[in-house]
Amino acid sequence: MNFEYYEKELDTLSEYRRIHSLNVAKEAVRLAEKYGADPEKARLAGLLHDITKETPDDLQLKIIENGGIILTDVERRSPKLWHSISGAVTVRDKYGIDDQNIFNAILYHTTARAGMSRLEKCIFLADFTSAERNYPDIDVIRKFAEVSLEDGMLYGLKFTISRLSGRGNLISPNALDAYNEILLQK
Amino acid sequence: MNFEYYEKELDTLSEYRRIHSLNVAKEAVRLAEKYGADPEKARLAGLLHDITKETPDDLQLKIIENGGIILTDVERRSPKLWHSISGAVTVRDKYGIDDQNIFNAILYHTTARAGMSRLEKCIFLADFTSAERNYPDIDVIRKFAEVSLEDGMLYGLKFTISRLSGRGNLISPNALDAYNEILLQK
Repeated sequence: MNFEYYEKELDTLSEYRRIHSLNVAKEAVRLAEKYGADPEKARLAGLLHDITKETPDDLQLKIIENGGIILTDVERRSPKLWHSISGAVTVRDKYGIDDQNIFNAILYHTTARAGMSRLEKCIFLADFTSAERNYPDIDVIRKFAEVSLEDGMLYGLKFTISRLSGRGNLISPNALDAYNEILLQK
Repeated sequence: MNFEYYEKELDTLSEYRRIHSLNVAKEAVRLAEKYGADPEKARLAGLLHDITKETPDDLQLKIIENGGIILTDVERRSPKLWHSISGAVTVRDKYGIDDQNIFNAILYHTTARAGMSRLEKCIFLADFTSAERNYPDIDVIRKFAEVSLEDGMLYGLKFTISRLSGRGNLISPNALDAYNEILLQK
């Protein structure tokens, strides 16, 4: 995989987003090695997971449409979810990376879902624990991330669902399915 | 409808639960009259919504099984949801009340669901706003309940989803669907 080329592509992003992407890639590789996912795929998905995050909304919708993806009602009304979908399509269709696992890792990196692969879990979690993250409970989630992918994810999903419901924002059913699945497997 | 008989049946419950049931019935009638649901059905569903809440767990599971209902994984692991299901079955099979709307009003009175009838909404909401309720935000939800059934429900659903996710408890997908549906219709 041509990592240098993809790292160069990050120059189109803001400096904050570029550093975040590099950090997520690094953290995703670490988690992949620890938990038995493919480190090269983790690096690639980490580098490119936010590649369309700064793309204008209308262009993102175009990318999604051209990618043949029909948004659910919740997705259509949740612009913060669009970059995951347009990002997955971009990696597949613009960069020609034809790998379902990488596609899904980017597609579900914001919401998670039930039945995630280890690679998908690594990207979801690395996005919470990457080096530059600095929110109140960062030490707690980093600690859980060392216990298991699922413990780390559960903390992130609790945080996300609590915050969104407290604010009265839409919540992806995929996030709830992932949350319930982890609890049911405990 | 033989309300006296059903009120007498409440004597099998604790005094707290009996008073709560009478209050939910009264509040459900008030909401039904305000929002255009059937007040007699609201009274009946309100009286009987918790009829199995104090029934032992193993007996509730038996009632549910005998009623031909297969629990989802989330429901099986959430004993607090069982009384809604065993209650609906009891009202249908023991009391012979053959009314799908009353059945659903009791079945979904704890979780709510997408696509609720007005009767179902009245019972769900009356369970939050009945006269004896006395939790911190009771005045707020009572105020929203006067705006619309959906505004009142949304407040209740926000409260429930935030609390459950904060505690790391399972959350019924039906609750999330109801929550998202109200937000999407705003």
